[in-house]
Amino acid sequence: VQAQDVDTLNAILEPIHPADIAHLIEQVDARDRRDFLTLWKGGIDGETLSELDENLREEVLESLAPEDLATVVRDLESDDVVDLVEYLDEDQQEQVLDALAAPDRVAVEQALSYPEESAGRHMQSELVRAPEHWSVGEAIDYMRSDVILPDQFYHIILVDPRLKAVGYVTLGRLLSSPRATRLRDIMEDSFRTFHVAQDVEEVAQAINHYHMITAPVVDDDDRIVGVITIDDAMAFLEEEAEEDLLRLAGVGEGSLSDGVRETTRQRFPWLAVNLVTAILASMVIGLFENTISELVALAVLMPIVASMGGNAGTQSLTVAVRAIATRDLTGANVWRVIRKEALVGLINGIVFAVVMGVIGAVWFGIPQLGYVVAAAMVVNLVIAGLAGTMIPVVLDKLKVDPALASGAFVTTVTDIVGFFAFLGLAAIYLL
Amino acid sequence: VQAQDVDTLNAILEPIHPADIAHLIEQVDARDRRDFLTLWKGGIDGETLSELDENLREEVLESLAPEDLATVVRDLESDDVVDLVEYLDEDQQEQVLDALAAPDRVAVEQALSYPEESAGRHMQSELVRAPEHWSVGEAIDYMRSDVILPDQFYHIILVDPRLKAVGYVTLGRLLSSPRATRLRDIMEDSFRTFHVAQDVEEVAQAINHYHMITAPVVDDDDRIVGVITIDDAMAFLEEEAEEDLLRLAGVGEGSLSDGVRETTRQRFPWLAVNLVTAILASMVIGLFENTISELVALAVLMPIVASMGGNAGTQSLTVAVRAIATRDLTGANVWRVIRKEALVGLINGIVFAVVMGVIGAVWFGIPQLGYVVAAAMVVNLVIAGLAGTMIPVVLDKLKVDPALASGAFVTTVTDIVGFFAFLGLAAIYLL
Repeated sequence: VQAQDVDTLNAILEPIHPADIAHLIEQVDARDRRDFLTLWKGGIDGETLSELDENLREEVLESLAPEDLATVVRDLESDDVVDLVEYLDEDQQEQVLDALAAPDRVAVEQALSYPEESAGRHMQSELVRAPEHWSVGEAIDYMRSDVILPDQFYHIILVDPRLKAVGYVTLGRLLSSPRATRLRDIMEDSFRTFHVAQDVEEVAQAINHYHMITAPVVDDDDRIVGVITIDDAMAFLEEEAEEDLLRLAGVGEGSLSDGVRETTRQRFPWLAVNLVTAILASMVIGLFENTISELVALAVLMPIVASMGGNAGTQSLTVAVRAIATRDLTGANVWRVIRKEALVGLINGIVFAVVMGVIGAVWFGIPQLGYVVAAAMVVNLVIAGLAGTMIPVVLDKLKVDPALASGAFVTTVTDIVGFFAFLGLAAIYLL
Repeated sequence: VQAQDVDTLNAILEPIHPADIAHLIEQVDARDRRDFLTLWKGGIDGETLSELDENLREEVLESLAPEDLATVVRDLESDDVVDLVEYLDEDQQEQVLDALAAPDRVAVEQALSYPEESAGRHMQSELVRAPEHWSVGEAIDYMRSDVILPDQFYHIILVDPRLKAVGYVTLGRLLSSPRATRLRDIMEDSFRTFHVAQDVEEVAQAINHYHMITAPVVDDDDRIVGVITIDDAMAFLEEEAEEDLLRLAGVGEGSLSDGVRETTRQRFPWLAVNLVTAILASMVIGLFENTISELVALAVLMPIVASMGGNAGTQSLTVAVRAIATRDLTGANVWRVIRKEALVGLINGIVFAVVMGVIGAVWFGIPQLGYVVAAAMVVNLVIAGLAGTMIPVVLDKLKVDPALASGAFVTTVTDIVGFFAFLGLAAIYLL
């Protein structure tokens, strides 16, 4: 395909869905991608562009001539345009905006004026609204007139004479009602609006929680200014969950299509943090050099205690981070959860203490070694449960993303406590 | 509120959305929950029930009298009913099914006959279809007749005379077209159907990927039998992402509302696996007992090498597991990704080797110790990159969930390689 044959390429790609083309571009390696883009310059349309991974999008945008870019952008909905232009430099942004029709341009500029993670920034301005006093027939006639409708819409939002949003009618309901029915009489029971300044993640979660299809966004005067649609909310939540996962593993914003240099740089900070914490833990071991030199078995067993603590801590931590993200862990139940985690740590600690105590005693033929490893195991697993829950909760209270920072803290705690408890007890009771 | 006052309770809960009531039930502790359910028996409706967390749902279901259960179930869509009854025992299932109207009953039984994770099991049978030769007017008149329509629908699916699904019309398009227009002329360009036996996760991913609102599900003869809606797909993907996250951390199916006993049991297997792998790693240390007793500094530094490897491995692993789940990591790019991960490991390995080499040499005043720790670091980080990518890929090929099992394998590899490389090199070059 990469044999420089534009026509064949066009013929092949024509029937393919933009999302698949974007996926294809993401999968090939960097050199092929460049060749492909040079060759297929005209082919990229707006939808393909907005389906692309963020990092690649920049690459592709740069490869486009400004006039192509403008054409590309014109058939997108306002939220997708915002998404595209927000990271362009001023000059390019200006060029794209100039290419838009006046009302679209106003909508995009308006959206860009809201803060980055707000509902206002992510809403689309294309929506259908109607006065609440209209009848079903009037609404249908209005839509059949030459008014411009969004590509996809599923509700009509009802407004009062001062353009305040008061409710919505589903198209299904509209279609199945006689022409004379008033719109306000077939309004759905529950109607929720979201303020432009509200966090878009909250809106996405509400869409998921209440099974909404579109979330109406209103300004300070309760006037409807846009909607956030369920497919955007879905993509958004998917992204958030992925981010949490990657952050927990210390990978930050990583994506499979990043190059070696980019990936190395992303992973570096977390490894650096881990080096510092590992050195801290090693310094604890260093305190007991004499103890270890008298009984080398301690060096053999000590990583087991630390590792079990680290694992138990990660378990508690992951549940807590996830629960904070989904708002399941709140002030109302935080103490109960902490108590539970400590108790779970205690029970599992006792079970593994017995197992490990026997192994330790038998392996090295020193019963006291068994007691010490058992006691250290119980201590470390209880601490793991406590730290695994409390650290993310505290970080969240301090407005630090718990997914990003908890891991390092929790394993530092469990390593230090594990080594200290085990070697300390050994120093006291074994020597 | 728990003062046994049913009327107040009803008055308070009446205006609250079922999803919020479910959330409330999940948040209170086990005893309050039991009291609440006894008190508020009649209040639980179908929607609240299907919003509840799976484990709690069973508890609530058991607290309901069969006749209440039947009432509750009657106003649910078929996919929600299936979701409720699939885990009931035969007797209870029979009672619920008996309470349904005949066509609903058939739909539910049909769905239950499909495998657990299939599209057929999760689809709802409520949908609106129309012959493709109808006009817009005919379709609207049909919907205004006394036919029973689903609560929510956004498309009309067009079928040919043999009931084969051929396309769909959005309600927005329908509403904005003149009455005389043929439905087939306003059909959307792209139309995808999914087979009943297809994996529901694939369908959910397609919904997300192609921004679909509903996915039509067809049987062997291409006849439409149901749809999967975007809100269900959204909930489903959210659940899958959460499961991956929890599995990676070795927490399995955990939920915040589980009790101590349940939680302890869920966490136990992973800790047990970790104990085994930690003991394996310790046995590697055991091989070098003599080496350590000659130079205790080794015991101090060895956890650092293992810990850095474990972290780097977890980074590669998390990216790989996620990429497998989202189908971004495929046969087409697997070798490229593995090469990249190894290279990233090499580069970061060299950087941290230099840092750690200097620290090791200065800390203990033995330059050779610095060389050894540096070399072990490079080896372990390269292996971490390789193992972190290859292990999940191989597990996936073997049809084992990579999220569930990779973590244990990868950290075992990095622990063993870390200890072996460091202590082995030390034994050769230092003594």
